[in-house]
Amino acid sequence: MTLATGYRATSTPGEVEPFTLTRRDLRPDDVEVRITHCGVCHTDLHALAGSRGHGDTPLVPGHEFVGEVVAVGPDVTRFAVGDPVAVGNIVDSCGECAMCRSGSENMCADFPTLTYGGVDRIDGTPTLGGWSSAYVVRQDFAYHRPAHLDPAGVAPLMCAGVTVWEPLREWGAGPGSRVGVVGLGGLGHLAVKLAVALGADVTVFTRTADKADDARALGAHRVVVSTDDEAMAAAADSLDLLLDCAPASHDLGPYLRTLALDGTLVVLGYLGEGTVDAMDLLRARRRVSSSGSAGRARTQEMLDFCGEHGVTADVEVLPSAQVGTALARLAANDVRYRFTLDLGDLA
Amino acid sequence: MTLATGYRATSTPGEVEPFTLTRRDLRPDDVEVRITHCGVCHTDLHALAGSRGHGDTPLVPGHEFVGEVVAVGPDVTRFAVGDPVAVGNIVDSCGECAMCRSGSENMCADFPTLTYGGVDRIDGTPTLGGWSSAYVVRQDFAYHRPAHLDPAGVAPLMCAGVTVWEPLREWGAGPGSRVGVVGLGGLGHLAVKLAVALGADVTVFTRTADKADDARALGAHRVVVSTDDEAMAAAADSLDLLLDCAPASHDLGPYLRTLALDGTLVVLGYLGEGTVDAMDLLRARRRVSSSGSAGRARTQEMLDFCGEHGVTADVEVLPSAQVGTALARLAANDVRYRFTLDLGDLA
Repeated sequence: MTLATGYRATSTPGEVEPFTLTRRDLRPDDVEVRITHCGVCHTDLHALAGSRGHGDTPLVPGHEFVGEVVAVGPDVTRFAVGDPVAVGNIVDSCGECAMCRSGSENMCADFPTLTYGGVDRIDGTPTLGGWSSAYVVRQDFAYHRPAHLDPAGVAPLMCAGVTVWEPLREWGAGPGSRVGVVGLGGLGHLAVKLAVALGADVTVFTRTADKADDARALGAHRVVVSTDDEAMAAAADSLDLLLDCAPASHDLGPYLRTLALDGTLVVLGYLGEGTVDAMDLLRARRRVSSSGSAGRARTQEMLDFCGEHGVTADVEVLPSAQVGTALARLAANDVRYRFTLDLGDLA
Repeated sequence: MTLATGYRATSTPGEVEPFTLTRRDLRPDDVEVRITHCGVCHTDLHALAGSRGHGDTPLVPGHEFVGEVVAVGPDVTRFAVGDPVAVGNIVDSCGECAMCRSGSENMCADFPTLTYGGVDRIDGTPTLGGWSSAYVVRQDFAYHRPAHLDPAGVAPLMCAGVTVWEPLREWGAGPGSRVGVVGLGGLGHLAVKLAVALGADVTVFTRTADKADDARALGAHRVVVSTDDEAMAAAADSLDLLLDCAPASHDLGPYLRTLALDGTLVVLGYLGEGTVDAMDLLRARRRVSSSGSAGRARTQEMLDFCGEHGVTADVEVLPSAQVGTALARLAANDVRYRFTLDLGDLA
C-alpha cells in the first residue's frame, strides 16, 4: 500500500481537512499516478454539502485530475513510468454489458465505478478522489495527456470537458452547424471553446449583457441576452444544437424555440426535473436530450483534439491548502471559469 | 362556386348541424374532390368544444378524408377526373421558407393552412373541413390514394397515419429495431400496424391486461402492462423508439426508462406540458421529441406503403347523419379504433 495525503470531508457540511490515506498495492493492470492538479467541480460542492463527515467511509472529493505515472503493474501496456496522464470521473465499469461493449462505459448497466464515492469492483473498498497526492487506477481508465498543454487547464477537461464534448460529437457539431450555449460557467465556457475549435458557428445566451465580452473572448460569434424578448424572438429557429449549461431548473421553452428543424437541446447543467411543452418539440421536430461524461474512446479523442487545437479550460489555480477558499467562491459562482487545485504543496 | 352540403358547429358546444356551404371556383392548380369518407379525430372534438357556434365564420370539422377527383383546373398535371384521392390536415403552405423547401410543409414557418379553421392564402376566406360532400384543394396538397384499399380505412391514415408514420421513418423503424407503442387508440393502433409492416419488433404498453389480445391481433409481438411495476422494470433499456400515444399528460419517466442507449421517446398523444427528469435522459443518452403530421413527400410515401402492405385503419363506419353519435362515443373513448363518416348520405 502507498501512503498519500489529501483532503476529506469533516463533520461540518461543506468543509474539508487534511487527511492521510492509503492507496492499494498495484494490481497487474494498475498504474499509480502522482497527482499534480485536480479541478473543483460543482459535484464536489454537492457531495460535501451532503456529507456527514468521515465516519467509517471518508469522503475525498476530486474527479478531474492530471499527473504523471510513477509506477505500473506487470500487465500494463498502455503507460510507462513518467507518462503524462489524466483521469476523469469514472475509474471502472463492468466491461460486459451492452453499454460497455458499445464503448459507453459511462452508462454501464451495472453502474460505473466513480472516482470517489464509489466502491472498488474487486476489493469492495470505497474509492477516494483526486484531491490527494496519488491515485491508483486501472490503465483502461487513465488517459494520455498532451504534455504541451498547461496541466492545470487540462484537469477540468476530464469532467467539464467530456460532458460538453460528448453531445457536440454525438450531434455532429462542426463546420456549417449552428451551436448555442446557455450559461458561461465551467461547462459553458468549454462548450464555447470546443464548438468554436470544431468549426461551428457559436451563439452564447446570457442573462446579462455584461458577459458578452467574455463570450466573444472565448470565441463566440454571437451573444443573445436571454432576458431580451425581442432578441430571443429574433433568434428563433436559428440553431441546430443547444447545450444548456444553466445550473438551475428552468423552463426549456424559450431555448427550445431557438432550434431549427430537427434541432436538439441537451440539458447538461441541471440534472433534475424540467418542464417541456410537446408543442415546442412538435413545431420543428425538435428534441431534448442530456448527457453525462463519455466513454473511454471519446474521452481520449477529446484530449487528443484539445492537444491539436490548444484548448484548455480557463482556470484559477490555487494551492491545495486553499481548497476552502475555492469551495466558498465556487458556491458563490465567483470563478472564471474553474478552480484547479495545485497539489504540489502536498508532496 | 360549387354548392356543397356538410356539418357545422352550432351554438351548443360539441354539436353540429347540417349546413350548405360553397366551394371556390377552381383556380388553375386546384382539384375538386367529391368526398366519400372522412375520419373523426380528437382534434375535431376539441375544436367543437371550443366553438361558440357559426357566427361569421362557420366551423366545419374534418381533416382526414378520401374521395374522387371530379374536376381539375387548367394547370393541374398530377390528377385527372376520376382519380382516387386523399387529403389530410394541411391544404397549403408558403412554399418558400426553409421548412417548406426541405419538404416539411407541415412545419411551414408562416404556418401551414389547415384544412379547416385556417385562412386561404389567396382569397382570405376561412377553410371549411371535410365533413362535407366536396372540397377544393391545390393539387400539391392532394394525394394519390391506393384504389384497392377500403376508402373508409384510408381516411384516418391522412391524420392519425401520417402522425405516427413520420417518427417511425424519422427514427429508422425497421428490421432489427425495437419499437414501443403507448396507448391503443386511433394513433396507437396505426403505430402498431405500421411498425409491424416496417419489420420492427413491436411492444405495446397498456394500462390493463384486457387489451393484450387486441394488441396482438394488430400484430404486436409483446404486451407490457404499464401498471405492473415488475413488468416495467423487466422492460428497462429494451427499446429503440417509443411512440407515446397516451391522450393525457403523464410522467414520461417510466416510459423513458424502457429505452436503450440513444433511444427516442416521441410524444404524440398529448401536446401540452410534460415533466422530464434529465437524469432519465442522461442515463442512456435518451431523447424526447414530438411530431405532428408530415410533409407532402412523406405523406404520399405513407399512402404508397399502406397500399403495398395492405395497411388501413380499423374503423367503425357511420352514415354522416350519425355524426353526433360518433362524437359522443369518441369522447367516451368508445371506438376501436377510429370513426369514419360515410358522406354518401349527403349526395
